[in-house]
Amino acid sequence: MKSFILKGAICYSVSPKELAVHENSYAICVNGVSVGVFPEIPAEYRHLPVQDYSGSLIVPGMVDLHIHAPQYTFRGTGMDMELMDWLQQHAFPEETRFESRDYAENAYGLFAYQLKNSATTRAVVFATRHAPATEILMEKLEQTGLVTYVGKVNMDQNAPSPLAEESPEASAAETQRWLQAVDGRFARTKPILTPRFIPTCSRELLEKLGQIKENWHLPLQSHLSENPGEIAAVRELFPEEASYGHCYDRFGLMGPDTIMAHCVYSSPEEVALMKEKGVFVAHCPASNTNLASGIAPIRAYLDGGLRVGLGSDVAGGHTESIFRAITDAIQVSKLYWRLVDRSCKPLCFAEAFYLATLGGGAFFGKVGSFAPGYQFDALVLDEADMLRWGNPDARQRLEQYAYLEKGSHSLRAKFVSGQKII
Amino acid sequence: MKSFILKGAICYSVSPKELAVHENSYAICVNGVSVGVFPEIPAEYRHLPVQDYSGSLIVPGMVDLHIHAPQYTFRGTGMDMELMDWLQQHAFPEETRFESRDYAENAYGLFAYQLKNSATTRAVVFATRHAPATEILMEKLEQTGLVTYVGKVNMDQNAPSPLAEESPEASAAETQRWLQAVDGRFARTKPILTPRFIPTCSRELLEKLGQIKENWHLPLQSHLSENPGEIAAVRELFPEEASYGHCYDRFGLMGPDTIMAHCVYSSPEEVALMKEKGVFVAHCPASNTNLASGIAPIRAYLDGGLRVGLGSDVAGGHTESIFRAITDAIQVSKLYWRLVDRSCKPLCFAEAFYLATLGGGAFFGKVGSFAPGYQFDALVLDEADMLRWGNPDARQRLEQYAYLEKGSHSLRAKFVSGQKII
Repeated sequence: MKSFILKGAICYSVSPKELAVHENSYAICVNGVSVGVFPEIPAEYRHLPVQDYSGSLIVPGMVDLHIHAPQYTFRGTGMDMELMDWLQQHAFPEETRFESRDYAENAYGLFAYQLKNSATTRAVVFATRHAPATEILMEKLEQTGLVTYVGKVNMDQNAPSPLAEESPEASAAETQRWLQAVDGRFARTKPILTPRFIPTCSRELLEKLGQIKENWHLPLQSHLSENPGEIAAVRELFPEEASYGHCYDRFGLMGPDTIMAHCVYSSPEEVALMKEKGVFVAHCPASNTNLASGIAPIRAYLDGGLRVGLGSDVAGGHTESIFRAITDAIQVSKLYWRLVDRSCKPLCFAEAFYLATLGGGAFFGKVGSFAPGYQFDALVLDEADMLRWGNPDARQRLEQYAYLEKGSHSLRAKFVSGQKII
Repeated sequence: MKSFILKGAICYSVSPKELAVHENSYAICVNGVSVGVFPEIPAEYRHLPVQDYSGSLIVPGMVDLHIHAPQYTFRGTGMDMELMDWLQQHAFPEETRFESRDYAENAYGLFAYQLKNSATTRAVVFATRHAPATEILMEKLEQTGLVTYVGKVNMDQNAPSPLAEESPEASAAETQRWLQAVDGRFARTKPILTPRFIPTCSRELLEKLGQIKENWHLPLQSHLSENPGEIAAVRELFPEEASYGHCYDRFGLMGPDTIMAHCVYSSPEEVALMKEKGVFVAHCPASNTNLASGIAPIRAYLDGGLRVGLGSDVAGGHTESIFRAITDAIQVSKLYWRLVDRSCKPLCFAEAFYLATLGGGAFFGKVGSFAPGYQFDALVLDEADMLRWGNPDARQRLEQYAYLEKGSHSLRAKFVSGQKII
C-alpha cells in the first residue's frame, strides 16, 4: 500500500535556510512519491486512507552519507586516540574478523536491525575488503526496507597483512567478482566503489578502480582530508598533486556521484575541485571530534555552493543517530566560530536539519523533502520520553527531539518510498 | 534497610587517572556507608542480604555541580544564540513564570521526577529569585531521595524588571526569609547562597550576601568567566579588580564551599585565586558549546591542582545526563588540544569519569567512590539498549554506556547513602 495520507505536525526543509512547519496538516503519498503537504485533503485524494498521527511530528527520513557497518560492534569504545592509531588498534583488527561469514552474519544482523530502527532511511555504507561478508551485509540491508549503497573496501597497502589485499590485481578481481555476484540482485541495495583512502591504495589499484568505475557506471565513496597526519602521508605518496583530492581525481574518481567523508582540512584548491566536479561532502562531526581530527568549516562549504550532507561515521562516530549528527554539527560549528574563524558563523537548526535531509538526500535523487515529486521517506517521531511542561510549537519540539533523541527505537513509524518499515 | 551487598561488575575511580574495575565482585554497604569492594564476601558480612546484579555494571552515583531547575522546561530548544542574548530571550522570560506557585508545582515536579530517574545522585541546583517557588523545589527534591543543595537566586540589576529584585535590601530580606523558612526542615536538601553572577548583582547586594554567608555558614554557587562579553561587562563594573573571580572574593564569596560554574576564560590570577581558596570548578562542556562560549582548559586545571567536577548546566546544556557530560568533556578536550593548545592533552575516559564522581563528589564530603568510608551512592546500569556482538570487558562496557546513554530512565537501580530510590 504505497498511496496514503499521514496526518500530523509536518516539518521539512525547503532550502538550506528555510524549515517549513505545518501544524495539523496532511502529507500525501501516491505510489511512493510525495504530492505535497496540505492543510485540508484536496478532493482528488479523499479516497486515500488517512493514518492519523495528530499531535506527532512527521519529518522526512534522515540520510546517512557515511557509516562503517563492521565498526558498529565496538561503537562508543576505544575513543582515546587519534585516527591513524585508532585504525591500527581498533578498526583494522575488528574488520579482520569479517573474513568469517558467521561473524558477518551476526555482526551485520545486529547492524541492520539497529539501522532499520533508527531515524535513517537511506545510507551509504562501508563494509570490509571481504566480498562474501559484503554480500551478506547487502542481503541483510535489503531485508530492512532501507535504501542503501554498500561498498566492498579496496586496500592493498599500509594495513595489517590479513586486512590488506594481496595485490592491486587481487583487489580488482575480488571487486569484479563481488559486482557480478550482486548485479541486479537487490531492489534497494546497490554497490558503490569504495577505496578506503589514498594511503591504503597503491597507484596501480587506484588506476584499476578508475576503470571499474567507468565500466560499471558506479558511484564512489572514500575519505578526504580528515587529519593532518593523514594529509602529510598523502603528500609524501603524491608530492606532485595540487591537493589530496587531486590524487583521487587523476584516476577519474571525483564526480557528481562521489562522496568524500570529512574534508576537515580541504585547501582552496581541493574545495574548488570538489565544487567543479559536484562531489558530495559527508560531514561527520562526532567522528571528527572523537578522533581529535578537528572541525570542518561547513558554513563556508555551504556558502561556497558545495553539496553537503551528514554522516554518522560509526564507529569514529559513536552512534548511528543522524539527529545526534544534526546537533553535533551545530555544536562544533559554534566552537569553530568561537575558536577558529569568527567570520564563519555557526549553523542554525534549520541548516543542520537541511544537511540531514535534503542536503544528503540529493545523492539519492529527489529525496529528503515532502515537496511534490520527492520520494516519500517519512518518520513519525516518538516524543514520549520528552517530558514537557508548557506549550512548545512544532519547530521547538523538533529541535528538542533532535537534542534529546535516544538513537534507535525512538520512532512511532517509518516509511521509505511509501513503504512502511516500522 | 541500609546494610546490604550488591553483586555485579563494579567500577569506580581511585584517583583522577585510575579507574578500578572489579568483575563479579561485591560492593558492601553498612549503614549507608561503603566498607569496600571484595571478590568474595568477607565472613563478618555474610549475614547481609545480597542483591544480585551479576552481569550488570555498578558505579558510584553521578554528581551534578551545576543545574538550573527552572530551565528544565525548555531544555534542547532555543539553542541558536550566545549567552547574553539567550539569557534575555529564553532563560529570563521562563524564570519569570516561577512567580506563580502553580507553575512551580508543575515545572519543578517534572524536573524532580526526571532528576530522580537520571544517573545523578547529588546535585547543586539554581532555582529562581522567588523564595516560595524555591521552597516548592526543595520539597520536591527532598521527596526524591536525592541529596541536593538548592539556591534562591539573587539578582538586583541588569535583568528584565519582573525578574530583577527591587533593591539590594529586598533581595537580602527575601533571602533571609527563605533561609528561615527552610532552616532544618529537610534531611537531604540544603540551602546554598546563589548570586546569579556579577553583572546582575549590585555591590550593595554582594556585600549583604557576604554577611549572610558568614552568619549562616552557607556554601555558595555562581558563574565565573563563561563568555568574553560577560567578562568585558564585569571589567567595566569592577575595573579595579585583578580578575572576575576577585570581584566575588572581595565580598568573601570565594572559599572551599564555593562552586564556580564554567571558568572557560580564567586568567592566571583567577586560577591562582581559586586554587588558594579551594574553590570548585563546575565544568559544563555542553553548555559552553551550545552557547558558543568556548572550551575550558580542564586538563590544565587538573594538573594545576584545582578541584573540578561536572555540571549539566541545564538548559545551557540540553540534558541532565552526567554520562553525557563525561563524554562531552572528553570530546571538547580533544578539540581544545587540536584547535587551541597542543600542550594541553585531551582527557581520557578515566579522568572524565573521575570528574563526574569523585571530583564533584568532594563538594559533598566523602562521596563518589566505593572506597571504605564513602557514602554508598550507587547506580546499577541498564544496558538493554546497548545491543552488542562480541565480548567487551567491564571497562569497555562502561565507556560504551557513557557514550550511548541518553538521559533519564536508563538505570536498573539507584542508591543514595544506601537508600534505594529506584
